[in-house]
Amino acid sequence: MKEISILQKHRSNYQPKLPPVFIQKETSVEVREGEQAEPQSDQKAVNERFPRTYGLPLLTFETTEKAELPAINVGVVLSGGQSPGGHNVIAGLFDAIKQFNHKSQLYGFLEGPSGLIDNKQLLLTEEIVDQYRNTGGFDIIGSGRTKLEKEAQFDQAAATCRSAGIGAIVIIGGDDSNTNAAMLAEYFLQKDIDIKVIGCPKTIDGDLKNKQVEISFGFDTATKVYCELLGNIQRDDQSAKKYWHFIRVMGRAASHIALECALQCHPNITIISEEVADQGRRLKEIVEYIAGVVRDRSLNGMDYGVVVIPEGLIEFIPEIKKLIAELNDLMAEHKDYFNGLTTPEDKHQFINKNLTAQSAQAFASIPQEIQWQLLEDRDPHGNVQVSRIETEKLLIDMVGDLLREWRAEGKFSGKFSPQNHFFGYEGRCSAPSNFDADYSYSLGYAAAALVACGKTGYMAQIANLAEPPGNWVAGGIPLTMIMNLERRQGRDVPVIRKALVNLNGGPFKEFARQRDGWAKGNDYIYPGPIQYFGPAEVCDRSTMTLALEQGEDILNILQGLDVLRDSDVFSELGPEAIIRLLSLVQRLYIKPGQMVIRRGELGQCFYIVMDGELEVMGKDDKTPVATLKKGDPFGEIALLTDVPRTANVVARTDGSVLFLDSYSFKDFLAEFGNLGDRLEKLGAERLKELEGKGN
Amino acid sequence: MKEISILQKHRSNYQPKLPPVFIQKETSVEVREGEQAEPQSDQKAVNERFPRTYGLPLLTFETTEKAELPAINVGVVLSGGQSPGGHNVIAGLFDAIKQFNHKSQLYGFLEGPSGLIDNKQLLLTEEIVDQYRNTGGFDIIGSGRTKLEKEAQFDQAAATCRSAGIGAIVIIGGDDSNTNAAMLAEYFLQKDIDIKVIGCPKTIDGDLKNKQVEISFGFDTATKVYCELLGNIQRDDQSAKKYWHFIRVMGRAASHIALECALQCHPNITIISEEVADQGRRLKEIVEYIAGVVRDRSLNGMDYGVVVIPEGLIEFIPEIKKLIAELNDLMAEHKDYFNGLTTPEDKHQFINKNLTAQSAQAFASIPQEIQWQLLEDRDPHGNVQVSRIETEKLLIDMVGDLLREWRAEGKFSGKFSPQNHFFGYEGRCSAPSNFDADYSYSLGYAAAALVACGKTGYMAQIANLAEPPGNWVAGGIPLTMIMNLERRQGRDVPVIRKALVNLNGGPFKEFARQRDGWAKGNDYIYPGPIQYFGPAEVCDRSTMTLALEQGEDILNILQGLDVLRDSDVFSELGPEAIIRLLSLVQRLYIKPGQMVIRRGELGQCFYIVMDGELEVMGKDDKTPVATLKKGDPFGEIALLTDVPRTANVVARTDGSVLFLDSYSFKDFLAEFGNLGDRLEKLGAERLKELEGKGN
Repeated sequence: MKEISILQKHRSNYQPKLPPVFIQKETSVEVREGEQAEPQSDQKAVNERFPRTYGLPLLTFETTEKAELPAINVGVVLSGGQSPGGHNVIAGLFDAIKQFNHKSQLYGFLEGPSGLIDNKQLLLTEEIVDQYRNTGGFDIIGSGRTKLEKEAQFDQAAATCRSAGIGAIVIIGGDDSNTNAAMLAEYFLQKDIDIKVIGCPKTIDGDLKNKQVEISFGFDTATKVYCELLGNIQRDDQSAKKYWHFIRVMGRAASHIALECALQCHPNITIISEEVADQGRRLKEIVEYIAGVVRDRSLNGMDYGVVVIPEGLIEFIPEIKKLIAELNDLMAEHKDYFNGLTTPEDKHQFINKNLTAQSAQAFASIPQEIQWQLLEDRDPHGNVQVSRIETEKLLIDMVGDLLREWRAEGKFSGKFSPQNHFFGYEGRCSAPSNFDADYSYSLGYAAAALVACGKTGYMAQIANLAEPPGNWVAGGIPLTMIMNLERRQGRDVPVIRKALVNLNGGPFKEFARQRDGWAKGNDYIYPGPIQYFGPAEVCDRSTMTLALEQGEDILNILQGLDVLRDSDVFSELGPEAIIRLLSLVQRLYIKPGQMVIRRGELGQCFYIVMDGELEVMGKDDKTPVATLKKGDPFGEIALLTDVPRTANVVARTDGSVLFLDSYSFKDFLAEFGNLGDRLEKLGAERLKELEGKGN
Repeated sequence: MKEISILQKHRSNYQPKLPPVFIQKETSVEVREGEQAEPQSDQKAVNERFPRTYGLPLLTFETTEKAELPAINVGVVLSGGQSPGGHNVIAGLFDAIKQFNHKSQLYGFLEGPSGLIDNKQLLLTEEIVDQYRNTGGFDIIGSGRTKLEKEAQFDQAAATCRSAGIGAIVIIGGDDSNTNAAMLAEYFLQKDIDIKVIGCPKTIDGDLKNKQVEISFGFDTATKVYCELLGNIQRDDQSAKKYWHFIRVMGRAASHIALECALQCHPNITIISEEVADQGRRLKEIVEYIAGVVRDRSLNGMDYGVVVIPEGLIEFIPEIKKLIAELNDLMAEHKDYFNGLTTPEDKHQFINKNLTAQSAQAFASIPQEIQWQLLEDRDPHGNVQVSRIETEKLLIDMVGDLLREWRAEGKFSGKFSPQNHFFGYEGRCSAPSNFDADYSYSLGYAAAALVACGKTGYMAQIANLAEPPGNWVAGGIPLTMIMNLERRQGRDVPVIRKALVNLNGGPFKEFARQRDGWAKGNDYIYPGPIQYFGPAEVCDRSTMTLALEQGEDILNILQGLDVLRDSDVFSELGPEAIIRLLSLVQRLYIKPGQMVIRRGELGQCFYIVMDGELEVMGKDDKTPVATLKKGDPFGEIALLTDVPRTANVVARTDGSVLFLDSYSFKDFLAEFGNLGDRLEKLGAERLKELEGKGN
C-alpha cells in the first residue's frame, strides 16, 4: 500500500457526522415535497428554457420503515478546481447507494466532464474509496474544465451511461457546472432518456450560495488554511515590526475569502472588490487609502501592517476593467502582429495607439511588470488570466510611489518596507476540516437519496449549517430555482448566479463596523492550524461568514441569557461567566422520543434545557423518574465523576437543548469553580434519588 | 482582555512537558560536573581569546532535597529572527526562577540586545507571561538584530544590569548571538563583574547544532508548517496535473529546512545547497537537471511536478557566489555613481565593464528581473539581501528557456506551466508544536537552573530529544566548546560554527537514496497541519532530521523486534504487525522506584517491558503481587475496559519500557484483532489474580 502520513492514517478513520435522517441504518428515507419553487426573477425566460424541470417542488427527506430501494448505477463527475471535501462527497455517495441497495454501483468519470463524453470511467470499490476518505484533492478520479453544454455532448453522455448501465449522474461543481447539470437534466427529460442528473455545490470561493444553498463545500477549509497563514504572518509582523505584508488571496469573482480572513484575523486593511465596484473607486483612490493607513500608522510609530487583497480586485476597478476588456479585444484581433513586434518600445506604442485615451492612461499608470502580465497569454476564452496578475505587487509599487511623493512633500517620514504573498493552491487542496468533511459527506448522502427517490434536475441540499449536524436538514433544490438571466457572449442565458459579497449582509457590515479600528491598532487574531482532535469549539466551528449570515450565534446568546438567568443552578453566575458559557455551547433541536443520553455510554457532553421537556428514565429504561425543564442542566454526573451515563434521557416534547463538550465543560469549571461545586452537589443528589427509585 | 482565537485560548492551558529532573516540585536541582570540554579544533586560539571560560566542564542537573536557592534577578533577551518557542523559553525561565526562589524576578530587555545596551526593560509578571504561553512570535518583549560585540556595549550592559539589580542575562539567539553571549561572559569574568551570561539555541533554520546541541528550537514547528503547505500543493498538483510548482523555502546558510521538507513530503525535486557547493555544480547544470526531470516525467505523461529550493541556493553556486561578491564590492565603491546613471543600458554597461569576464557572463545568463534584484539595496553590511532574490523565478525562467531550446531540437514535446511560491514568514511565527513548546520551555528551565547554580558562559542544553520528554536530560554546554576559528572581515575569529547539511549524515543519505524514485513517481506524502490534541504519534513526533540523526527509531525497531519475538503475548504476531506496532511506540527509560502507572488514574497508555523489571503492587500500594519482565505487556486493563488503573506499577530496576497512547493502541487493535482477544484474556486473568490477592 502507498505510504501515507501519520495524520492521514488517523484521519482516515474519522466518521463524518450526518443529518439525523441519514443516521439510522435500520430505516430508509423517503422524500417529502414542499412548495413549488420558482426563481426570484426571470421566471418566464427560465421556464421557456427549462419547460420540464421548471417549477419543481422543494424536497426534504424523512426516515421511513426499512424498504430496500431499487438498485441503481450512479456515475459521478468532479468538475473544475479542487475544493476540500470532494472526496467525501464521493465517499458519502458510495456509502449511501450501498446502504439503500447493496447491489448499486458507483462509477467515477475520469478527468472531469470529458470522462463522461469520452466514456472514460472507473468502477469505485470500497478499497479505492477508503483510501480517499477525509482527504483533500480531487485525485481519486481527477477533475477537468470541459464545459458540458452542447447537445452532441449530451448525446455522448447518454451513450456512455447506457454502455455502463448508469441511471444517474452526480455532477460536483461550481455555478457553471451546475448550470450545465440543469441543461443535461432538461435535455434527458425532453428526449425521454431515463438518466437522472443531480448537482452538488462545490467551490472554495464561497460564491455559489443563495437562500437555499447556505454555502458550498470547501470554503470553510480553504479559509481556515489562509487564516492560519495570515495569522502567522500577522504574528511575525507584530514581532518584527518592520514590514508591510501585501497578501493576495484566492477569490476571483467574489471577495468572500478575503472577507472571511478579515473577520477571523483582523488585518489592518482588507479590500473588498464588491465595495470598490459599488462605489466606482478608481485604482488611484485605493492606493491613496492604503497609503493613508500606512502614513497614519507610521505617525503612531508603526511602520508595519498587513493588507489583504482579493485575487479578482483589478476586474472590479472600473478603469482597469475597461482596460482589460480593450486589451482582450486587441489581443484577440492582433495577437500575431503584436507578438511579431521585436522591441518593447514598439509593443508599447502599438498598445498605446490602439487603446481609448482613458485606457491608455490607465495602462501607463501601472508598473511595467504588471503591464507585461496583462499582455501575457490569454485563457482559452481569450481573457487575461487574472489569477496570474500579481495585484499585490501592483499595489506595493503604486503605494510606494505615492509615499515617495508624500515624502518629497514632507507628508510622510516613515519607512515602507513591503513583502508580497499569494495564498492560493495551499488552501485549495487541504484535507477538509470537520465541517467540510461532514458537510460534503452529507451532500453525497443527499445526492444518493435524490437519485434513489427518482429525482432529476435537483441540487443536493443540506440546510441549517450554522447549527451542529444533529440539526441539519437534508433535501433537494430544483436547479431552475436558483437561476437567473445573464448576458454571456452577447446573449441572455439562464445561469446560476454567482453570489457576490452582499454589502448589506451581516459579514460585510460587521467588517465595515470594525475596520477603522483594525487599521489603527494591532487587533490581530491568530487562528492557528485546522484541528481534527480536541474541543468541539476548536474543531467543529465553521466560518464567521456562515454564522453572521445565519445569525444563529447571536440568537443562542440572547435566548440562552434569559434561560440561564431564570435557572436554579445558573442564576448565581455573573454576567461574564454566563457570556463565557454561552460562547461555548451549541444547540441541538429535539423531537419527542429522541434519546439524548444513553445509559452506559461514556459521557462526552453536558446539557442545559433551552425549551421543551425531557425525561430521565429509571433502570428499566422506560419509566420516567424525573422531568427536565427549561434551564435544567443534565449530563453532569458522567463528566464530573468519569463513570458511564447513569440513565437514559429522552425528549418528551419538541424543544432544544444547549450542549457543550467535556473539554469545554472542564475548562469552564476551571475558570468558574463555584458552579462546579453546585453541579457536584446536584449530581450527588440525583444519584441518590436514582438509587432511591430502584436504580 | 485582548480578544484571542479559540484555539489560542485552549492552547494557553497546555502544560509543556519537562525532563524528569525539573518535574518534582518538592525537590530542587543541583549541578553535576562532567568532563572538561574543549572545542574539536582551534583549541589554542579559542583558549587565547577566552582564557576564563575555556575548558569548563559539561554539566547535567540532578534532583536534590528541597533547599531554596538564592533569589536572583534575571534579564532575558530575544535576538534575531523569530522562532516558534521563544515565548516558552521565557515562560520556562519565569516559572523556574520562581520555583527555585519566589523572590527572584525576571526582566525582559526590549527590542533585542539594544534594550540591554539602552536600559530598556520590562518586569515580567505572571499576568504578562500567561498571555504568551505556547504562542508564536517574539512580541512579548520584541527582538532585534543589534550585535553585542564591543567592549563599550558590554560596559553599558553591565550598567543596565546594575541599575535593575540583575545578576544574570539569558540570551536567546542563533550562532552569532551565542558567540556574543560567550564574549560577554568572558568579559564580565575578566572585569570581575558578577553577572552570569547564559545562551539558548534558537533558529528555525536548524543550523545551530552539533554533537551537544541536537537541534535549535523552532526548526520542528517551522518545517511542519512548510510541510503542511508543500503537502497541500502536492495534492493540488496530483489532482490538477498541469503545473510545475517551484517552491523556495527559508534557510539561507544551510538547507536543513529543504531537506526536512523532502524527507517528509517526497517532492519530485529538492536542491540541497551544500551538495551543489560540494560538487561545484554550475547554475547551468542545476537547470539541466531540473529540465531533465521535467522531460522524463513528460515522457511518462506527467507534465507536472514540485521542486523545492533552499533560499540560500544562489550563494552556493560557485560562479554566482563570485558574481555576488564582485557586485557587493562594486556597489560598495560606486553606489552613488551607479544610482546616478539614468538608463538601464548605461547601468548594464557599467556593470558589465567592471565585472570579471566570468562574472559578466554569469550576470548576462540570468533573467533581467533577477539581475535587478541583485543590484537592489544592500543590507547594513553591504551584502545583497539574498532572501529577496526570487531564485524560484530564476530557475523557472532558465528551465523554461532550456525546454524551449530542447523543443526546437525535437528533444521535448511536453507542456511546462510553472507556478512560483515562497514559504517564509508563514512558518517563522507559528505557534509552537508540542515538541517545540516542550523543548523551549525545558530550555528556559535549564537556563534558570544554570543561573541558580551560579554558572556563566554556558548554553542551556536538553539532550536525548529524539526520545520522549521522560528521557530528556537537562544540562549545560560551555559556549567555548562549540567554537572554532572562522575568517570574518579579514580576521580569524572564534565563533560558533553554523552546521551545514552533512552529506554523510543520515538525513541526506536517506534523501539521496530515495530521490530518483521521487523524481519519477508520485510518492507525495501529505503531512497536514500541526495537531495539538489527539494521538501522541500525530502531536508529539518531531522531525525526520532529528530521528535520522539520532538514529533512535531504528534502534527501537531492532531491539523491540527481539523483545517482541521472545514474548509470550506477542510472539504470534506476524512481521507486518510487529513492524506496525514498533512504528507506533515510544520508549521510556525507568529508574528503581519510578511509578509508571498510578492506581485510580484514567489509563492513557499501554506498555511493554523492554528491559529491567517492574512490580505490580497490591491494594496497600506497597506489597508487590507480580513482577513484569522483558516482553511483558501491562496497562491493558484500563484501556480495554475503560476503568481507572487497577494497581500501581513501579520500576524495581533500571530499564526501559515501550509505550503507546490509547488512540494508537485502539487503532492497532482494530487492525490486528487477534492480539485484542489475547490481551483481553490476559487482562481478565490478571484482574482475577489481583482480586485473589485481596485486591
